[in-house]
Amino acid sequence: GDNVDLSEERRKAKFCVDSLSELLHGAEHLKRRRMIAKFVEETPELHDVLPTAFMSREQKIENASRKIITLLKHMPSLNISSFEDIFYYQSLVMHLDGHPLSLHSVVFLPTLMQLTDGEQRKKWLPRAMNLEVIGTYAQTELGHGTNLRKLETTAIYDTNNEQFIINSPTITSTKWWPGNLGKMSNYAIVVAQLYLNGECYGPHQFIVQLRDENTHLPLPGITVGDIGPKFGFNTNDNGFLRFDSVRIPRQQMLMGFSKVTRNGEYVKPIHEKLGYGSMVFIRSVMISQQALFLAMACTIGIRYSCVRRQGEITPGSLEIKVIDYQTQQYRLFPQLARAYAYWFTGNCVRALYAQVLDELKANKIELLPELHALSSGLKAVVTHQVAIGIEQCRMACGGHGYSDASGLPQLYGIAVGGCTYEGDNIVLLLQTARYLMKKAKTALDGKKHSSSESIEYLFCEGSLKSSINQSSGSDHTVLIEAFEHLARRLIFTVYDRMENLKKYGTTSEEAFNECSVDLCKASRAHTRLFIAKAFSNKLAVIADPNIATVIKDVVTFYLAHELIECAAALLEDGYLSGQQVAYLRALSYRMMDSMRGNVVALVDAFDINDRELNSVLGRRDGKVYENLLKWAQLSPLNNADVINAYKEYLEPYMK
Amino acid sequence: GDNVDLSEERRKAKFCVDSLSELLHGAEHLKRRRMIAKFVEETPELHDVLPTAFMSREQKIENASRKIITLLKHMPSLNISSFEDIFYYQSLVMHLDGHPLSLHSVVFLPTLMQLTDGEQRKKWLPRAMNLEVIGTYAQTELGHGTNLRKLETTAIYDTNNEQFIINSPTITSTKWWPGNLGKMSNYAIVVAQLYLNGECYGPHQFIVQLRDENTHLPLPGITVGDIGPKFGFNTNDNGFLRFDSVRIPRQQMLMGFSKVTRNGEYVKPIHEKLGYGSMVFIRSVMISQQALFLAMACTIGIRYSCVRRQGEITPGSLEIKVIDYQTQQYRLFPQLARAYAYWFTGNCVRALYAQVLDELKANKIELLPELHALSSGLKAVVTHQVAIGIEQCRMACGGHGYSDASGLPQLYGIAVGGCTYEGDNIVLLLQTARYLMKKAKTALDGKKHSSSESIEYLFCEGSLKSSINQSSGSDHTVLIEAFEHLARRLIFTVYDRMENLKKYGTTSEEAFNECSVDLCKASRAHTRLFIAKAFSNKLAVIADPNIATVIKDVVTFYLAHELIECAAALLEDGYLSGQQVAYLRALSYRMMDSMRGNVVALVDAFDINDRELNSVLGRRDGKVYENLLKWAQLSPLNNADVINAYKEYLEPYMK
Repeated sequence: GDNVDLSEERRKAKFCVDSLSELLHGAEHLKRRRMIAKFVEETPELHDVLPTAFMSREQKIENASRKIITLLKHMPSLNISSFEDIFYYQSLVMHLDGHPLSLHSVVFLPTLMQLTDGEQRKKWLPRAMNLEVIGTYAQTELGHGTNLRKLETTAIYDTNNEQFIINSPTITSTKWWPGNLGKMSNYAIVVAQLYLNGECYGPHQFIVQLRDENTHLPLPGITVGDIGPKFGFNTNDNGFLRFDSVRIPRQQMLMGFSKVTRNGEYVKPIHEKLGYGSMVFIRSVMISQQALFLAMACTIGIRYSCVRRQGEITPGSLEIKVIDYQTQQYRLFPQLARAYAYWFTGNCVRALYAQVLDELKANKIELLPELHALSSGLKAVVTHQVAIGIEQCRMACGGHGYSDASGLPQLYGIAVGGCTYEGDNIVLLLQTARYLMKKAKTALDGKKHSSSESIEYLFCEGSLKSSINQSSGSDHTVLIEAFEHLARRLIFTVYDRMENLKKYGTTSEEAFNECSVDLCKASRAHTRLFIAKAFSNKLAVIADPNIATVIKDVVTFYLAHELIECAAALLEDGYLSGQQVAYLRALSYRMMDSMRGNVVALVDAFDINDRELNSVLGRRDGKVYENLLKWAQLSPLNNADVINAYKEYLEPYMK
Repeated sequence: GDNVDLSEERRKAKFCVDSLSELLHGAEHLKRRRMIAKFVEETPELHDVLPTAFMSREQKIENASRKIITLLKHMPSLNISSFEDIFYYQSLVMHLDGHPLSLHSVVFLPTLMQLTDGEQRKKWLPRAMNLEVIGTYAQTELGHGTNLRKLETTAIYDTNNEQFIINSPTITSTKWWPGNLGKMSNYAIVVAQLYLNGECYGPHQFIVQLRDENTHLPLPGITVGDIGPKFGFNTNDNGFLRFDSVRIPRQQMLMGFSKVTRNGEYVKPIHEKLGYGSMVFIRSVMISQQALFLAMACTIGIRYSCVRRQGEITPGSLEIKVIDYQTQQYRLFPQLARAYAYWFTGNCVRALYAQVLDELKANKIELLPELHALSSGLKAVVTHQVAIGIEQCRMACGGHGYSDASGLPQLYGIAVGGCTYEGDNIVLLLQTARYLMKKAKTALDGKKHSSSESIEYLFCEGSLKSSINQSSGSDHTVLIEAFEHLARRLIFTVYDRMENLKKYGTTSEEAFNECSVDLCKASRAHTRLFIAKAFSNKLAVIADPNIATVIKDVVTFYLAHELIECAAALLEDGYLSGQQVAYLRALSYRMMDSMRGNVVALVDAFDINDRELNSVLGRRDGKVYENLLKWAQLSPLNNADVINAYKEYLEPYMK
């Protein structure tokens, strides 16, 4: 009984959707996803009684609290334990907007595992695992986010009592933003400037109790609360926190790396940059998560565009599916291609991360800077493109995309946060650029090879003219070379510009600032190259020939479309001719035609359940209109025929 | 007692802010703005008791109802009547999110004035003016927005009773989206297919009563309600509406143009396209409104960037204002330049509109298609860039930009709606393109001049190579020529491609679809040219030499930056060389340097009152941090130390 237009699309597909889903999720995990989805479907107490869009913030938080506890209760019977399984179970039940234990599970627990010493781990980890303690991570302050070295919260060691005294000396030192800090957490890992004998040792982490374990009331010296509504994550009580001479025992400084002895002596960590690891991990997970956000938006936009009929191309005939307008394809297909590209890139980065972890165990840290640079660049490029992509999908749904019933405004609010949290995108691009500048120097100094695969191209000389021609496209090598050329040129050009500025007396910091727009461009080009390669390389491991054919079209379209977006920089030095750009454009239109019949199957293959998708427009069955009407009727404003606002204010004035 | 960093910026300005405000608003209107702002400031019953960000949707609607009635009560004592004055008064009190009388005043009243015959006007206008009747305009349906000819609501004439019978024959025929339809309006102008003796005469407008004038209950046959929450405008009860054989007298069809006689005969209007006028008017107002949205975002982003200090360029020194990072300037200054460009373009289009109205009175309709094409293109280009620009300003504010305290998430939600309402942007660009294709044909047919100034360039041959050189910039003519070349080339190229397709057997409708992406590009280039000229021409009428100097920098930066954004298309045919693009880039960086000292004064000159701006980050006094803390403490979640969600769900599980 599905919408006939959508069923027709599904019959057109030239590959087996389940096989592609297996490729995307892994065969084993896909099975468990289906089992988990069935369980959630059949367990009404895990559902919302009303779509959350109709709830006030307070109601959303109550609803999420109820669900997360219910979810935990059912966990043992479900018998799941992998990170992916738990993440999926939670997505189905909690949606995207956060819940009372978000930070506890994603940041507090991992930090306890990684930054404690043995004794601390033994004391705190079981309590945190049992939820006797709910914790968060309090780093950012009102006045400082990016420049952590200037955080103002202080932790002054008092040798007499073997205690740290925590203080918020200024308004701007107020902790601000930490998730679940406002009302839910009773503990926090607090980042503060460590002072020993009047000397500052920089920011360190401390376990601080915020609320009484029995009454949940804030402890003396603690001022804590919610920071109010935001663009997204409104089910999360992001909070503020101030300290007035709060004393904690010495043992509550996290001592996995640095240590403070009883008598206030500082013991340095062995490796300064080991902290990098967890940051890189979160960023590599973010790539996959952002790919999922874009996949969700594409699922909604593409299904709805096959259901929606509007206008005729041939006058007098049936109105056509809006997906058959070239402009609509041009809006949606690049997003679909990116969702696939980022999905596979996410996998690729996580594999790299696993490799780096292995090497770290053997005390090899060579790969860490490369991975850090890559994950920073990827986080910046992917979150930016995903946010734009979601909005394109939303606007492709016309007026209905503007309604919360589409799920798209909420999805955008959540996804776009990724451009700012875990490092502002511009700051991250500049970090990647610093790494690239170092490597550019190495290459110019005459080294023949790099130790890192992702920057090997800086050590090669490519052609100065592209060989793209009318039949390019089937051979991705030629297209990838253009990405390499672009990154190489932008990196060396900005390197030269900086060196020049320095030669004429500009300090290196000022030169870096004066070149920072171009440095960001170089980082983006480097990152785009990495994604292009990761996506294209994926083709080699696809065994199913039908899937390989379809994904190859998507890769070709992706590469052509990305190069067209970078065309100015490729034309500027004559690497591409105008004719070659025209070939690329023709290629991208040709690929849109070949993809057309497969697009619904391509979004189906993401295997995003209706419950996870949470969108009336994106429903798998395509029954959009009747369900929009049903959804609207749930609006609390419809509980009474005549609402109070009218009676109290308008009616008296009208009469 | 302002923030010292902001005061320092204000002292740097090289022009008189008030003089520029006069240029932007008109001296007379500026005086009245200040008077109105003072009045609102001193009238507490016009204020919110709590920032609306903390209110539920129901509370927001009650609050808006209270304020709009209070606002109306004070109107006589304020003694204002111009459109601008009323609009400003309303902005200060109601903010952007709509209110119960939005559609009544902006659409219902003007439609009654324009589309009624004399008798109807006499009957309905006074009742609507006195608010005995609250009306809206119900056109869009669940299944149709863009293709109005396929609306499904029917109005069948019953000759026996001299009545129309209104019906919603399908789910998709449900009226959907009209503002204030859900709970507030008791009347609506309904667009329905007119049927006379079994024959369909297409969509016409009818006045239909929805609710009882005494009880406000929906009348028999009427199903009406709110459609639920949206990306923005949540204070507005956008609604749905279904008709089950609702009868209205013949006299309630709007008969200003078409008519139906007693015995069911159809009388055609004289000019088919006179309806255009009001659409064009709304779009021309939208340009100014969107310019204001962007000006608001710039005010917030630029002031905050002068207050926020983060990181050092020279190590060990004071942290610097984030506005001094090149990347931050590159994010914000293009938005500032666009806000100015769109502001002046808005004025220019409204002047054109006034001219067209004058000519229409003399039965001259030649200018109407040109204005229609222009206003469609402008609406599409401006709303798109404004939405992007607001997000850039928001992200430039880092984490705090993500909080509703910044006002930016709400501003984006409202502004981006403009990409969809009053005509989907892509559809509008294609309408502009149809006009341009006609004119391209005229030009190619050998006519020497156009009747319309805005497309005169299609009738001229420009140079095929730009003469931009290292010293370009002070002479805008050279830069404008590049815009002309680009628009001309894209228009004629896509024209040729379409003609070619038709020559080889493609129908003209299919050819249009196959070229539609390129057609949109042509429309955008035409529109960008118009804006570039309108902005640059403004310089000629600026008398104050200090202001002229500063605005000239802004125009130069605008032109250079826009051309860089279009660089791919300008390089593709060799019109620009790589060297020339490099000159433009250097020029844009140079202009960022010259603008730097004036940016706070440039946003101050928009004269956006704190009450209208509604942003903690954008406060005129720059006291950001202490007020963020005050703002957060108002969050309803902070009313109790321990919230119910914790007590009911988490506590039992933890114990």
